Amino acid sequence: MAQNSSRPVGRHFLQIPGPTTVPDRVQRAISAPIIDHRGPEFAKLAKKCLDGIKTIFKTTNPVIIYTATGTGAWESALTNTLSPGDKVLMLETGQFATLWKKMAERIGLVPEFISTDWRHGADPSLIEKRLREDKNKEIKAVCVLHNETSTGALTPIADIRKAIDAASHPALLMVDTISSLASADYRHDEWGVDVSVGGAQKGLMLPPGMSFNAVSDKALAANKTSKLPKSFFAWDDMLNMNKVGFFPYTPATQMLQGLVVGIEMLHEEGLENVFARHARLGEATRRAVAAWGLENLNKNADQYSPTITAVMLPEGHDADKFRALALETFNISYGASFGAYAGKYFRIGHLADINDGTLVGALGITEMALQLAGVPIKKGGVQAAVDYLTTAHGGGAKKAAAE
Amino acid sequence: MAQNSSRPVGRHFLQIPGPTTVPDRVQRAISAPIIDHRGPEFAKLAKKCLDGIKTIFKTTNPVIIYTATGTGAWESALTNTLSPGDKVLMLETGQFATLWKKMAERIGLVPEFISTDWRHGADPSLIEKRLREDKNKEIKAVCVLHNETSTGALTPIADIRKAIDAASHPALLMVDTISSLASADYRHDEWGVDVSVGGAQKGLMLPPGMSFNAVSDKALAANKTSKLPKSFFAWDDMLNMNKVGFFPYTPATQMLQGLVVGIEMLHEEGLENVFARHARLGEATRRAVAAWGLENLNKNADQYSPTITAVMLPEGHDADKFRALALETFNISYGASFGAYAGKYFRIGHLADINDGTLVGALGITEMALQLAGVPIKKGGVQAAVDYLTTAHGGGAKKAAAE
Amino acid sequence: MAQNSSRPVGRHFLQIPGPTTVPDRVQRAISAPIIDHRGPEFAKLAKKCLDGIKTIFKTTNPVIIYTATGTGAWESALTNTLSPGDKVLMLETGQFATLWKKMAERIGLVPEFISTDWRHGADPSLIEKRLREDKNKEIKAVCVLHNETSTGALTPIADIRKAIDAASHPALLMVDTISSLASADYRHDEWGVDVSVGGAQKGLMLPPGMSFNAVSDKALAANKTSKLPKSFFAWDDMLNMNKVGFFPYTPATQMLQGLVVGIEMLHEEGLENVFARHARLGEATRRAVAAWGLENLNKNADQYSPTITAVMLPEGHDADKFRALALETFNISYGASFGAYAGKYFRIGHLADINDGTLVGALGITEMALQLAGVPIKKGGVQAAVDYLTTAHGGGAKKAAAE
Amino acid sequence: MAQNSSRPVGRHFLQIPGPTTVPDRVQRAISAPIIDHRGPEFAKLAKKCLDGIKTIFKTTNPVIIYTATGTGAWESALTNTLSPGDKVLMLETGQFATLWKKMAERIGLVPEFISTDWRHGADPSLIEKRLREDKNKEIKAVCVLHNETSTGALTPIADIRKAIDAASHPALLMVDTISSLASADYRHDEWGVDVSVGGAQKGLMLPPGMSFNAVSDKALAANKTSKLPKSFFAWDDMLNMNKVGFFPYTPATQMLQGLVVGIEMLHEEGLENVFARHARLGEATRRAVAAWGLENLNKNADQYSPTITAVMLPEGHDADKFRALALETFNISYGASFGAYAGKYFRIGHLADINDGTLVGALGITEMALQLAGVPIKKGGVQAAVDYLTTAHGGGAKKAAAE
Repeated sequence: MAQNSSRPVGRHFLQIPGPTTVPDRVQRAISAPIIDHRGPEFAKLAKKCLDGIKTIFKTTNPVIIYTATGTGAWESALTNTLSPGDKVLMLETGQFATLWKKMAERIGLVPEFISTDWRHGADPSLIEKRLREDKNKEIKAVCVLHNETSTGALTPIADIRKAIDAASHPALLMVDTISSLASADYRHDEWGVDVSVGGAQKGLMLPPGMSFNAVSDKALAANKTSKLPKSFFAWDDMLNMNKVGFFPYTPATQMLQGLVVGIEMLHEEGLENVFARHARLGEATRRAVAAWGLENLNKNADQYSPTITAVMLPEGHDADKFRALALETFNISYGASFGAYAGKYFRIGHLADINDGTLVGALGITEMALQLAGVPIKKGGVQAAVDYLTTAHGGGAKKAAAE
Repeated sequence: MAQNSSRPVGRHFLQIPGPTTVPDRVQRAISAPIIDHRGPEFAKLAKKCLDGIKTIFKTTNPVIIYTATGTGAWESALTNTLSPGDKVLMLETGQFATLWKKMAERIGLVPEFISTDWRHGADPSLIEKRLREDKNKEIKAVCVLHNETSTGALTPIADIRKAIDAASHPALLMVDTISSLASADYRHDEWGVDVSVGGAQKGLMLPPGMSFNAVSDKALAANKTSKLPKSFFAWDDMLNMNKVGFFPYTPATQMLQGLVVGIEMLHEEGLENVFARHARLGEATRRAVAAWGLENLNKNADQYSPTITAVMLPEGHDADKFRALALETFNISYGASFGAYAGKYFRIGHLADINDGTLVGALGITEMALQLAGVPIKKGGVQAAVDYLTTAHGGGAKKAAAE
Repeated sequence: MAQNSSRPVGRHFLQIPGPTTVPDRVQRAISAPIIDHRGPEFAKLAKKCLDGIKTIFKTTNPVIIYTATGTGAWESALTNTLSPGDKVLMLETGQFATLWKKMAERIGLVPEFISTDWRHGADPSLIEKRLREDKNKEIKAVCVLHNETSTGALTPIADIRKAIDAASHPALLMVDTISSLASADYRHDEWGVDVSVGGAQKGLMLPPGMSFNAVSDKALAANKTSKLPKSFFAWDDMLNMNKVGFFPYTPATQMLQGLVVGIEMLHEEGLENVFARHARLGEATRRAVAAWGLENLNKNADQYSPTITAVMLPEGHDADKFRALALETFNISYGASFGAYAGKYFRIGHLADINDGTLVGALGITEMALQLAGVPIKKGGVQAAVDYLTTAHGGGAKKAAAE
Repeated sequence: MAQNSSRPVGRHFLQIPGPTTVPDRVQRAISAPIIDHRGPEFAKLAKKCLDGIKTIFKTTNPVIIYTATGTGAWESALTNTLSPGDKVLMLETGQFATLWKKMAERIGLVPEFISTDWRHGADPSLIEKRLREDKNKEIKAVCVLHNETSTGALTPIADIRKAIDAASHPALLMVDTISSLASADYRHDEWGVDVSVGGAQKGLMLPPGMSFNAVSDKALAANKTSKLPKSFFAWDDMLNMNKVGFFPYTPATQMLQGLVVGIEMLHEEGLENVFARHARLGEATRRAVAAWGLENLNKNADQYSPTITAVMLPEGHDADKFRALALETFNISYGASFGAYAGKYFRIGHLADINDGTLVGALGITEMALQLAGVPIKKGGVQAAVDYLTTAHGGGAKKAAAE
């Protein structure tokens, strides 16, 4: 294989579920010369970012912008609203839900973890049930992932809100939308989310190094009485300084330069078109997987993620070895597997600045790599994806009409 | 289609047969700060370029580097070796051969044009025949394209050399290798080429703006008596200044910065691997075209180009409209059609910094776009390409062995 | 002035004391395509960074790399080693010392603040005196800034160490070297620092968005019993994952790409040369200030910062208006003033990727802008700087020798 | 000197008279992904360039854009308008005039060279005298450099026009404005120039690799009867294709991307402001030179170039050695010297994207380097420049008014 290896040639297929490929236009914005972060040009830049990011979270409240990755924004959501010993209800949708729960424990909260088999998304009825039982309202927050990055399951946040309301429970609703924001529809205000946690390195098409908290009035009120210590992540200093266009300490100016362009590109395409594109590419991916005769880790068809598909390999096939072979031979990266399923599946990220052609290319080399790895698949996955996409673009309809 | 158009999203599929996609690594080299083109750092840079480019043409003689595109290097090949009224024998392989012939006429040469139907590459025996008839040795040069960019036909230059030698004719052999250099095997010295014409914006992976003349001793001797006027393109001044690491006038320094990296990348992959990759991607493309039930413009299977495939559309289908639809819907550019076949075919470029995944993506959206355009094709082209590529990477063999 | 304004033309003179100008070479590294942060290429990149950054702090212990700015690394220094209610001894060298003290309060520590007039650096004898008084060893840490960014005062850390040792006190020594690291000599191990806090956006020549904790064994031991909550900034997870070349959560990959090159450039110049250059440029700046007849905010000549000079304006002259005029007319940014001296001084940053020519240019336009602003100065500052620099480069000596 | 060498640190001072520093904004435009040079996006780009460049030459006629450096545009001016054996009147203003004259000879023209001492610009009266003598109108063209790059002399083109008209001579007027275009006022139409020759790598702030011919109707008429062979540089094909937004062969697309931004930046500043800035920086440079007690190569104060100052060194001092020392010690490049004065002077370029601060920095290190090189100068050059610039910005006036 060595003599015709294509590994270091051409574009890398970065099919991890983020950080995603940075578009050239964003990259050029990030490469702008450094400016004074206390000068008038910066104030304009900050305002554009602070205003623009609200349109992405669909909120009229402020969004706090951190120089940190998503894990930092998880922490800030908790420390800015809760106090030591507070109970939080969390759902074990997968690896990232588990990590958030460990963080809660570590900083002095008492998480209650509704466990799942990682093969189904969150079940709102379990939340409603648990909250109804919580007569003393000891649970201070419900924390869920909109899109569980480790399994490719999308939880219906509106239903979670309904569940909390049905139980007439005052708990805050905190949602991690890191791997769905700007790829799947997300409505911070309409869905009654109290703290939304987002990151720059997925649908927003930036490199990693920036994360967000969108907040509700209720969350802001909770902030005033919250006793967990916080300083770098403190909302109050941020909100005060942001009002005049600055930050309490040096922000990542170049990331802000890129954020303006990322948001601009999303609105040029139109958020609805962005979501439709991700839905289409997600379905195309699942068609390919089905055609190969492979199983989706996520068994719940109602909760398929539009950004990530987790593909199970048959017993006896090592997903990590498969990923290494694919990287070596075809210059493609996939997401890894976790927990009880470590080594048993790989994840195809199909999000951010990706179009039909790039996805088809990724699926094509995946089909090739699976065969080279000796995984027993049926051929035809890439063709199934192309056939579906043709129809999705009106081709099938047209043809049918012509017949 | 508007509501889910993917046109401006993601990477553009630049499937024109050059200028090709510039790899990030080359792009970063080109973005280096401007240096003094008469300073010591420049001298080192120039030496790297002048030495390196010889390894690409496979010559030990000097290669002249022009700040001009390929058309300029065509002109320099002619004006540096010939005199007004000289006869040159040219072969009508397609549009670019025709343009070179028009140039020859324009600058005062007398081209004799062996015409073809554009659907077969050059026939060495016709050259031998014509040269044998030229008893007075009036023909001063034979000019052919190694790879006719407009039709996707690759002419066997070694056979042209044999034809000239068989006729014992002293004519110079001039070869345009613009769209094959650094993609298909090319051997300036071994094949006895007198002037090879190349460009930067194809296999060398640079933007347009640089072109080359590789020369033989015989060409250098012809230069001394050649009477066509030349100054910007004059070899003598160039060769003199190049000896000490400089150019007679301001060169395109940034292109030279990029050239170093382009050559470096080619050698890192290994020229043999580069050629094998292009051969593989060319065959995959032709398999897709055949599976669609479409015709290759080039009818001569022995002369298929490894860098370009020209695809005929059925009668009544406008290739330019198809290209516009594909660009609008799928963000892909193809090469146009020319001459008698204008509007009847489109060209898929599969050269330079391209890997299996990018080609499969391009073929996938081509299959989709053909259907959207109402071109009556059979589905299965992208699958045929993927199946072939799997085998080419050892997948089929492996599997067969296992069965 | 409008008709010949040069404001938006040419290079911006970014004379704030950081973020500093990013060299093109670092910028190009940062612009590399995103890679999988869990893949083999990343592991190599991480190792280079984790090894390289040790050479900058001059430590053989691990250095923790955060995706956060310096304020985050302040917090991590405190939360990873201390427990709620712990006493910390801090020195009011200026604005940034004050901010660090406020942070300590905010997260539940009990800072004791040795106040100063902001016009002298830290006095080690005051620390020794206070520690001797602390018979019960209630003070758990001494926190000082190596270089107080708001005033341009450099504290001798080796003397602080001596003071602690003289008092035979077990307090941890924590040092902020954000605006001195990689510009002034700094020796984490030799000086017995327990936690050093650094940032990427100053001497390391990166954009803002990365910060560091260098740690001693004693600090690592303190970490095991420390009770302040931490998660994003927790050392233990970081150190565990770093051992195998990864991070516990998505790091800022592009910043790591830049860090490799920043460290490489520092070693190519040689750290001793880097420090000598900053010392030279600092002295040249002070010569200009003196020639103008203006006062240095810092009255202690033994503690002049090599990276920042704070220049007092005469009574009645508003430093912020002066800065605005200079920005508008000459495309230069200076650092602002703080606290009791707000509006009374401006800061000239002379650090990171800056050479003699750029400093002379900055001083020249400063002399011009001061005059345009009506500040009563003596001319000749830029000449004094040039004369000094000539001598520093051996010119004066040579000339003297020749005379 | 080694231990404090600043050579590779910080921004290079590129004080050669072009190629000039490419502004970041232009650089980012040039780094845009390659587009199809026959597609709709390209047509828009080409139109912007073809329209925009007219505003720079101040012409309503077409401007031809070449993928070649200035030397190519010299050749195209001659070959597109003249015929073998035609007489052309040229003026020996310096090295570049001499090279153009050699080119004329080489391509079959008969140049008549009015010689000068290189220390005075062109004298229009000599041209008038010679043309009056040419009773048979054998002289077909008068060729002059607006700005002789090798000596820093600016010729008044309007006066040359008057001289030709006074002699009632039909010769074409051809002007090289390579090192003055977009830096000094230039008026192709108003001054009655027939062919203006420009380049991208000076006032237009692009890298080298693009050049221009602005043409008059008279030049276009001459083109129809001109018999010198041309093809790559032929106006007719260019003008035909340009009409529909394309080029007859692959153009340097990335240079066109940059050209749009270069022109945009010039108009944002305002051409009059651009010219005033160059005039101001030129005068500041000459003040420094005078203060050092050094001589300007150009003895004619009426013809000082606003973009280049050629500085004579005293007898016995080698300008090339001085330049090498300055490069090594201070990271600055100057222009070289030529002809009879080779080694006797160096040139300071002060053009394109340069502001007061950068010029002052360059003059400061020049003063330092002259001293290090042992050149006997008086100190105070940089101060003289700063004092002048202060006044030019209204500072002196203001102060005087206040006194």
